[in-house]
Amino acid sequence: MKKIKPQTLKGFRDFLPEEMVIRQKVIRTLSEVFETYGFQPLETPALEYAETLLGKYGEEADRLVYTFKDKGSREVGLRYDLTVPVSRVLAQYQNQIPLPFKRYQIQTTWRAEKPQKGRYREFTQCDIDSLGSPSPLADAEIIAVIDDCLKKLGFEKFVIKINSRQVLFELMKGIGITEDKQLAVIRSLDKLEKTNPAEVKNELKKLELTEEKIKKLFSLINKVQPDENLKQLFNYLEWLGVSKDFYQFDPTLARGLDYYTGPIFEAIVEKPKIGSIVGGGRYDNLIADLGGPDIPATGVSFGLDRICDVIREENLWPELSPISTQVLVTIFSPEYLENSIAIANQLRTACLSTELYLDPETKIDKQLKYADKKGIPYVVIIGPEEIKKEAVTIKELKTGKQKTLSLDQVIKKLTPKE
Amino acid sequence: MKKIKPQTLKGFRDFLPEEMVIRQKVIRTLSEVFETYGFQPLETPALEYAETLLGKYGEEADRLVYTFKDKGSREVGLRYDLTVPVSRVLAQYQNQIPLPFKRYQIQTTWRAEKPQKGRYREFTQCDIDSLGSPSPLADAEIIAVIDDCLKKLGFEKFVIKINSRQVLFELMKGIGITEDKQLAVIRSLDKLEKTNPAEVKNELKKLELTEEKIKKLFSLINKVQPDENLKQLFNYLEWLGVSKDFYQFDPTLARGLDYYTGPIFEAIVEKPKIGSIVGGGRYDNLIADLGGPDIPATGVSFGLDRICDVIREENLWPELSPISTQVLVTIFSPEYLENSIAIANQLRTACLSTELYLDPETKIDKQLKYADKKGIPYVVIIGPEEIKKEAVTIKELKTGKQKTLSLDQVIKKLTPKE
Repeated sequence: MKKIKPQTLKGFRDFLPEEMVIRQKVIRTLSEVFETYGFQPLETPALEYAETLLGKYGEEADRLVYTFKDKGSREVGLRYDLTVPVSRVLAQYQNQIPLPFKRYQIQTTWRAEKPQKGRYREFTQCDIDSLGSPSPLADAEIIAVIDDCLKKLGFEKFVIKINSRQVLFELMKGIGITEDKQLAVIRSLDKLEKTNPAEVKNELKKLELTEEKIKKLFSLINKVQPDENLKQLFNYLEWLGVSKDFYQFDPTLARGLDYYTGPIFEAIVEKPKIGSIVGGGRYDNLIADLGGPDIPATGVSFGLDRICDVIREENLWPELSPISTQVLVTIFSPEYLENSIAIANQLRTACLSTELYLDPETKIDKQLKYADKKGIPYVVIIGPEEIKKEAVTIKELKTGKQKTLSLDQVIKKLTPKE
Repeated sequence: MKKIKPQTLKGFRDFLPEEMVIRQKVIRTLSEVFETYGFQPLETPALEYAETLLGKYGEEADRLVYTFKDKGSREVGLRYDLTVPVSRVLAQYQNQIPLPFKRYQIQTTWRAEKPQKGRYREFTQCDIDSLGSPSPLADAEIIAVIDDCLKKLGFEKFVIKINSRQVLFELMKGIGITEDKQLAVIRSLDKLEKTNPAEVKNELKKLELTEEKIKKLFSLINKVQPDENLKQLFNYLEWLGVSKDFYQFDPTLARGLDYYTGPIFEAIVEKPKIGSIVGGGRYDNLIADLGGPDIPATGVSFGLDRICDVIREENLWPELSPISTQVLVTIFSPEYLENSIAIANQLRTACLSTELYLDPETKIDKQLKYADKKGIPYVVIIGPEEIKKEAVTIKELKTGKQKTLSLDQVIKKLTPKE
């Protein structure tokens, strides 16, 4: 067999156990909050017909969709987000799903982006969406969930920026920017945070906007006020108990994807500089565009990878153990293997996460070193002395302290106190 | 925008909430058992360099790998299983990971198969592998985990078939089947269960095996005895507490993939007819083939999709609720929305999974019908009468019974008793 160089593709990552422990805890925390608000789980395929995916996000984004011909020469593409798939589901099963449909979906998405800090080619989105309600109450509830989730994750300094596509459309209409150019202008405005005003002005010139219109746009955008719909949304936020410290109206917020039609929102943290960690908005036309009936919809996506980056970089969870295994049962020598297995069986029956060392020929001090390297806090030793005493020796690796105890005492010692 | 037909690709499926509830419970059950045995979580990318994936499974399997050129013209492929990715991880990070490395991995895999009952193009594998131990103790532990998992899932009638590639290689050597043909013979034998002996004999003829050798193979295969390594494995199974009722030596078990080198195993259920639900074995050369050092390895894959099919078809979990939402808070009319929101907030604070109806303009009886269709067991109503009494009305949809209670009483009623 030809020898190859073992490597991952650029922008793709392996998650080793220490990283997975953080990821799993974030997913567990988010799912619990989602379910508290009545969102139900959904999963959709990684591959969709390319025509389902393309033409929904905007030209630039479309170029980032991984598309290819499958073995049956069908044009297919890898999921770019979870919003188009859930909209396709609503279009496809329109009479089987009671509305409003509130679902959460935690799955991988792929974008052929240029990899950089906080931007990967493969990343996991945790989405909630309410499909079927035109009311700003639905948007407000989504924002309340963002607030609740970030707090439960231990984030203390964040802000949820809120704007509305309708506010932006009205503004552009007032300046005389024609409808055919409005989405392109929004895609350019979306880059204000990432690049700089000069760059954005350049892009707007390419759209053949006059100098005067560009000037007006920049001078008016910061003076715009919330419309009636947004005011109602803010009112609902108050009723839902979301404090004003954690959200603000931001008329420069544009969001990059074409499908948004109403309120849009984005959560950012103060530190580290990593872009938005949560983003979404209302998309009232997408389900119809996918061949379904007119179903208004709103939702948001939590970026799992960036959230984990923040937790790690800001050391938000200092107490989190890097491994779930509580104890390693060593093998004194091959002739005592049966005894070690019997002890491991009983520790597992007592619900303790127990690793049995898997090579009976290995010397005991190498087994202890292995436990230490792996971060397993305790090891158990069963040799001739212990068997005579009907006991086991337990050693705490951090302190080096060891004691010979009955198995019941060991189980009691290792069982976490509630 | 061009209207499209909303549809999934053949062999790909959406999992709506009722199905997801089963899937999530299976994953939770398996992960818990895996962690009890000291396996730690790992995740790898969906896309790998094509050269990582190809040439490991066998010719027929290689044709089922979804491969394509990415935007940088790299030949890439979608994960076909989780065994090659974890082996690539070991090859790539060889000095950073303490051995033995015991990991579990629950991720989607893709195969361009012909879809049929129990066979999908996208399916989820739940793998455990022990990498770094040459001992049959490692294989025996994997089999003990299969036994433990299937029992915890509620499976009562299953059998784990056990054989060894070494046993098959020795048998073929004795008959005079040359090494260059042995893997092809194994791939044919693997089809015995799925097709019939005549078909398999035909395939063997195409490999230019003489009639006599084929005859010998078929007459000897059922008389073969376990070798020393397998005998030791069976001995360890006894020590690990696995009852003989749930496993058997089966010399006709072949497994289809090329990379196996030692013990192989497969679990099947009596009903329904669905093929194996768990399968795996030892693969001592794969990590070196992927550019790493010689690391012996063994492991197994639980087929999540087939396991869920069995649970549903055999109705193994009749008590499982199809939805986690416990209560719907209705909106009496728009003027009482603030009251409904306040009640929903408090129910959520009490950790009850609470859906607030998201359209304040909808008539109350339509809201009740919605809860019923969705399978939410209780609804709460707050109107002028309730506000006067500082109480809420709670209605159980199954019985139609309703009571007006204080909010504390409602919380007590809905909180599950431990």
